[in-house]
Amino acid sequence: MNAPEHQRMKSQCANALRFLAADAVEKARSGHPGAPMGMAEIAEVVWRRHLRHNPANPKWIDRDRFVLSNGHASMLLYALLHLSGYDLPIAELQRFRQLHARTPGHPEVGVTPGVETTTGPLGQGLGNAVGMALAERLLAATFNRDGHTIIDHATYVFLGDGCLMEGISHEAASLAGKLALGKLICLYDDNGISIDGDTSGWFADDTVQRFLAYGWHVATVDGHDAVAIDRAVTEAKSSEKPSLICCRTVIGKGAPNKAGGHDVHGAPLGAQEVAGMRDALGWVAAPFDVPADIADAWNARERGALAEDDWTRRFARYSAAYPELAAELLRRCEGTLPPDYDDGLMSAVNDRSSALHQKMATRKASQLALEQLVGVLPELFGGSADLSGSNLTNVKASTWVNHHGTGNYLSYGVREFGMAAVMNGIALHGGFIPYGGTFLTFSDYSRNAIRMGALMKLRVIHVLTHDSIGLGEDGPTHQPVEHASSLRLIPGNRVWRPCDGVETAIAWLAAVQRTDGPSCLVLSRQALTPMERSAEQIEDIKRGGYVLGDAAAVDVVLIATGSEVEIAGRAAQTLAERGIGARVVSMPCVELFFAQDAGYRDAVLPPGVPRVSVEAGVTWYWRGVVGERGASVGIDSFGESAPAEALYEHFGLTSTRVAEAALSLIGKQQ
Amino acid sequence: MNAPEHQRMKSQCANALRFLAADAVEKARSGHPGAPMGMAEIAEVVWRRHLRHNPANPKWIDRDRFVLSNGHASMLLYALLHLSGYDLPIAELQRFRQLHARTPGHPEVGVTPGVETTTGPLGQGLGNAVGMALAERLLAATFNRDGHTIIDHATYVFLGDGCLMEGISHEAASLAGKLALGKLICLYDDNGISIDGDTSGWFADDTVQRFLAYGWHVATVDGHDAVAIDRAVTEAKSSEKPSLICCRTVIGKGAPNKAGGHDVHGAPLGAQEVAGMRDALGWVAAPFDVPADIADAWNARERGALAEDDWTRRFARYSAAYPELAAELLRRCEGTLPPDYDDGLMSAVNDRSSALHQKMATRKASQLALEQLVGVLPELFGGSADLSGSNLTNVKASTWVNHHGTGNYLSYGVREFGMAAVMNGIALHGGFIPYGGTFLTFSDYSRNAIRMGALMKLRVIHVLTHDSIGLGEDGPTHQPVEHASSLRLIPGNRVWRPCDGVETAIAWLAAVQRTDGPSCLVLSRQALTPMERSAEQIEDIKRGGYVLGDAAAVDVVLIATGSEVEIAGRAAQTLAERGIGARVVSMPCVELFFAQDAGYRDAVLPPGVPRVSVEAGVTWYWRGVVGERGASVGIDSFGESAPAEALYEHFGLTSTRVAEAALSLIGKQQ
Repeated sequence: MNAPEHQRMKSQCANALRFLAADAVEKARSGHPGAPMGMAEIAEVVWRRHLRHNPANPKWIDRDRFVLSNGHASMLLYALLHLSGYDLPIAELQRFRQLHARTPGHPEVGVTPGVETTTGPLGQGLGNAVGMALAERLLAATFNRDGHTIIDHATYVFLGDGCLMEGISHEAASLAGKLALGKLICLYDDNGISIDGDTSGWFADDTVQRFLAYGWHVATVDGHDAVAIDRAVTEAKSSEKPSLICCRTVIGKGAPNKAGGHDVHGAPLGAQEVAGMRDALGWVAAPFDVPADIADAWNARERGALAEDDWTRRFARYSAAYPELAAELLRRCEGTLPPDYDDGLMSAVNDRSSALHQKMATRKASQLALEQLVGVLPELFGGSADLSGSNLTNVKASTWVNHHGTGNYLSYGVREFGMAAVMNGIALHGGFIPYGGTFLTFSDYSRNAIRMGALMKLRVIHVLTHDSIGLGEDGPTHQPVEHASSLRLIPGNRVWRPCDGVETAIAWLAAVQRTDGPSCLVLSRQALTPMERSAEQIEDIKRGGYVLGDAAAVDVVLIATGSEVEIAGRAAQTLAERGIGARVVSMPCVELFFAQDAGYRDAVLPPGVPRVSVEAGVTWYWRGVVGERGASVGIDSFGESAPAEALYEHFGLTSTRVAEAALSLIGKQQ
Repeated sequence: MNAPEHQRMKSQCANALRFLAADAVEKARSGHPGAPMGMAEIAEVVWRRHLRHNPANPKWIDRDRFVLSNGHASMLLYALLHLSGYDLPIAELQRFRQLHARTPGHPEVGVTPGVETTTGPLGQGLGNAVGMALAERLLAATFNRDGHTIIDHATYVFLGDGCLMEGISHEAASLAGKLALGKLICLYDDNGISIDGDTSGWFADDTVQRFLAYGWHVATVDGHDAVAIDRAVTEAKSSEKPSLICCRTVIGKGAPNKAGGHDVHGAPLGAQEVAGMRDALGWVAAPFDVPADIADAWNARERGALAEDDWTRRFARYSAAYPELAAELLRRCEGTLPPDYDDGLMSAVNDRSSALHQKMATRKASQLALEQLVGVLPELFGGSADLSGSNLTNVKASTWVNHHGTGNYLSYGVREFGMAAVMNGIALHGGFIPYGGTFLTFSDYSRNAIRMGALMKLRVIHVLTHDSIGLGEDGPTHQPVEHASSLRLIPGNRVWRPCDGVETAIAWLAAVQRTDGPSCLVLSRQALTPMERSAEQIEDIKRGGYVLGDAAAVDVVLIATGSEVEIAGRAAQTLAERGIGARVVSMPCVELFFAQDAGYRDAVLPPGVPRVSVEAGVTWYWRGVVGERGASVGIDSFGESAPAEALYEHFGLTSTRVAEAALSLIGKQQ
C-alpha cells in the first residue's frame, strides 16, 4: 500500500467508527455521537497501532488495559471492539441501548467482552486506570525475573472535559504523578464543548500547566492528525512519567452542520445530518455495513493471537524456571484464595486466650486480623486516605509504596474518592484484593465509587473506622449517624458492623472470601467488650445475625450491632432482674441475615415476639427489622462534640433506656 | 511603641494563640495543636492587620468573611475570636470539646459567634469561601451605586495540605479562577506534614504552578515572617484574581521537641512539652491567662465598632438616596420573603387550565415553577453542574454569571461536589437562596456537602433530576435506585419526590419557605400524568402525604411517590373492578408526613389497613412505612440500559403487579 493509499485507509478506518457510532445512536434514537466522532482519529491510532490486546481472549493477563473514562462515548468503544474482532457482532451494535443488549448506554464490565471497567460517572475511569497502572507495576515487581518480563503492559485512557473538571481527576492525577506511573497514557478529547455549551464559560484551566504541576509528561496535538497523535503516543510510551496527550478536537467531527456545537454531544444527529456526513466523507456503505477492506484493516485477531502466543511461550519458559511463582501469579489473577489461609485467624478466633479476645476497639481488632491475613494473602493491598494510624490499616508486614516505589501498602493522601476509585481499578486489573481506610463519615466522599464497586461486583474492602458518636470530641462533622444505614441501601454492597474481636475477624474473612461485591467494615474508635460464644455461635456470625445471649422464655428480642451489642447485653441483664426474658441478637451484617432462609430468620427473630433495635445511628432503617410494633434506640439527629461517654449518656444510648424501651413494648411499665 | 517593641508585641500576640491552643488541647486531652501553632503568625497578621470585622456584631452585613477550611485547627479560631473580643469568654476555651460548650472539636456555625461556616470535612471550607466571595460580588453588583459602595468585603481562607489534596479543592479553585474572584484570599499552611507523616510521600504537586494554571495570583512566603505575610496579603488584596499565599510553616512551631513532626498534629503536646515551650518562648502566664498588654493589643472591639459605624453612616446616606434598594438589601440579608411572592405560582396551581396541569416531566414542571419564582424572588440564585438543559434549572430570566460576570445563574461546570459546597457558602453569606441541578445519581458526589447544609440548617435547594430507571437508556450508572431513600436518612434534610406539576410547585414553595435546612427536589425525566385534586388536597400536599384517591370502604392503602403515583392510581382502578377498595396516598415528602401529628397520620394511613408502597427504588426504606405485614413494589437491584417503558415492565413496576401485591396482602389471591 502506498503512502496516500495508506493515509486514505487510515481515514476510512476512523470514518468507520464515526458511522457506526452515528448510525447506532440514530437507530437507538438515544446516545452520544459527538465524542466518538471527535475521537475517531485518536481511537484509530491507539487501537490499530499501539494497543496490545487479543480480541479472542479479553482475559489475557498481560494485555494492555483500555479505559473510556468519558463513558458516554460508549459507541466508540463498541465500534472498536466490534471492528477489532471481539465477540460483539454487529447485531449487538444494532441493539445499542436496548434491554439485555451487550451494548448498554454506558460501558459495563461483565456485559461486553473487552470492556475493562464500567464508566459514566465522570472522572472515575481515570481513577480506575491509575489503579490498573499501579497494579501492573506491583505485579511486575513481584513476579518478573531477570530475563523474564511476564508482566509489562500499558493502561490507555480516553477522557473528556467533564473528567478533568471533576475533583477526582485531581486526586487521581496527583497520586499518579507522585507514583510516576509511566505506563499510564491518557488522551484528552479537548473539544471545548460540554453540555452547557462552550466550556470557556466555566472551564478555563491551563490543563497542560496543571498536569505539569502533578509531575506528568504532557503533549499537545491536533486530535485529527493521525501522524501527530502517533508520535505523541510513541513518546508517551517511553516516558517514565504518566502522560497526558491533549488532543484538540472538533466534537462531532464529520457532521457537516452540527460539528463543533453542543447539539452533537448527547442526541442523535438526525437522518438528514447523517446523510450529509455520508456525502461529505464519501461513505457509501449502508448503516452498520463496513466495507470489507476497512473491516480487514481493523481486524486485530491475527495480531492479537501472535501477541498472546508470544507471551504464552515466554510464560512457559518462566513456568519452567519459576514454577511456584508462575502458579502463584495464575492463582492471584484468578482470584482464588490459597489453601488454609484462614487457619491462623481462625485459631485466634477459637482461642479464648488470644489477643483477639481482649477488650479493644474493633479498628484494633481489624489490625490484628490483618496481621494474620497480610502474612498469608500477598494479594492483600492495603492503604488509607492519610489516616493509617487511626484506621489501623497498616501492619508490621506493610511496605509502603510511597517510600519504596512498590510494596503492599499505599498512603493515598487525603483522597477518599480517589482511593476508592483506584481500589476499584486494582481489583479490576486482577492479582490483588485491595482494602483501604478512612473515617466512616468520609464514605460520603467516596460513596459513588463504593456504588460502582457494587455495580461491578468487585472484591474491594472499605475499612471505615470511627463509626459513631463513640469517636467523641471531633463532633458532628466527623460522627456518622446515617452512614451505616445508607451504605446498606446500595444494592450488592455488604456492611459489617462487628461488636468485638471475633466478629471483626469473621467479617474480614467474609470480605476476603466474597467474590461478588465490596464489603464495608464499619469499626469503632473506642474499646469494646469481648463476648463469649460457642463454636456454633461463631459459625453463625457468618449468617449476618445470630442469638448471642438468650433467655429461657423470650419476652423480647434486643437486636444490636457493633458498639451497642454490649449495651443490649446489659439491658438484658436489667430485664432479667425484673423477670423479663430478653434475647440478645447480634446482627453485624443485616443484609446477609435477611438473605438467610426464613427458617433461620424466624429461629433468631421469632415472629410475634416484640423487638427492640439498638444502634448508634438513624433508626428509620431499623423499622424494617423491628416492624411497626417494635422500638428502636438510636440517634435521629446529628451528634455533638464531647467525650464519648458523655455523648452516649446525652443521646440516651444506655442499657437503662433500652430496658425501658423493652418494658414499654411488652406493656409492663416500670 | 518603637520598632523592636512593636515586633516583640506582634510575636507575643502570635504566641498567645499558641498557648491558648496548646493549653486548651491539653486540658481537653484531645484536639489538634499543630496547625494553630504553625499558623500563629499568619493568623496574627490577617486578624490584627487586615480582617475588617466587628466582634460586637458578628452579623454585620459588610464584614470580611473568614473561613478555617482546615477545621481541625479550631482552637486557633476560638483563640482569635476570644482575643478579638467576640462573645466567647475564656471559660468556653477551657471547656474545649466538652458537651454544649461553644468550642466544639470542629468549628460550627450557629454554635460560636464569629464562626462563618462549619468545617472539618476537608476542602469544603474552600468551596464555601468561593460561594461567599461570589455572593459578595453578586450583591455588590446588584446593590452598590455610584458613590455608594455598600457591599465591599473580602473572604479570607486558611487551608492545609489536606484541603489541597481533596478533589473539591480542584473544583472550587478552578471555578474561582474562571470567575476571577479577586476578593478571595487564601493562606495555605504549607507545613509538609499530614497524618501519615511527611507529605512528600503522597503529595508532590507543584501547588504554585497548579494554582497558576487555574488563573490565580500566587505568592510564596515564610509563614513565620509577619512582614512578608503582611506584604503578600496587601498585594493579594489589590489583585483582580483570587489569591493563594503559600506559607511555608513548621507544624507545631514553638514546641521545642515536637515541632515539625506529625505527633504534634492531632494529639496533646503533653505537660512537659508545653512547659518546655513556655521556657523557650519566655511565656510566663499561666494557662488561659493572657497578659493585659497582649490582650489589649488583640482587642478589636474599638476598631470593629469604628468600621461598622462608618459603614452604618454610609448605609444611612444610601438609604436616603435609594430607600427601596436599601430596604430590599436588608430584606434579602435577613432572609425574609417578599409579600405575595407565591401569588403567581399558586394561581397556576389552582387554575386547572394553566400549563402546570399538562402532562409533563416534573423537571419541566420545576422549570415552570421557577419561571414564576425567579421573577419575584431576586434572591434565587440558580445553576447546574453542566446539565442546565437536562435539569431545566435555567429560565428565561436567567442571566449567566459565566458570560456576564454577574447575574442570577451559574453553570458550575461538571463539579457536583464543588457546586453543593459553593451553594452552602452562598447561603451562609446571606442575600441569596441558591439552587443547583445535577442528576440524582450524582448526589453521591455532592453528598457530604448536602449533609453539611443539613448540619448548618442552610436554605439550599438541590434540583435532582432523572430520578429513577425512568431515565431509560443511560443505564445503571445513571439510574438512581437507592438515592432518594439514602438522602432521606440525612438528619434535617428534606426530600421531595412530586408526582406532577402541582406537587412540584408546592415542593418548590416548601423549599423556598424552609429556613432550617436544605431540600432535595427529586424529579423525573419522563412525562407524568397530572392528577385531579380538591383545594383541600392541594393544601395537604404541604403535609408531605395525603389521600389522593379514595374508596368508599378502604381495604388496602397504596402509597406512592413521584412517577409511581399514576401506577398506584391505575392499580386502584384495577382493584375497584374486582371489588376491592383501594386508597391512593401520594407521599411526596415522607419525612414531613411522619412529622405530622398522629391524628393526621392515622387519618391518611388507617392503622390496621394493609399497605403497599410503590416507588422505583430500593424497598427497605418503605418497610418503615408499610410495616412488616405490608408489601413494597420497587427495585432492589441496579437498573439496566433500555427505553424507560421497557424497564418499567422488566422491573415489574406496573399497575398489574401493584394490584397483585395488594390482592395477595388482603388474602384474595387472583
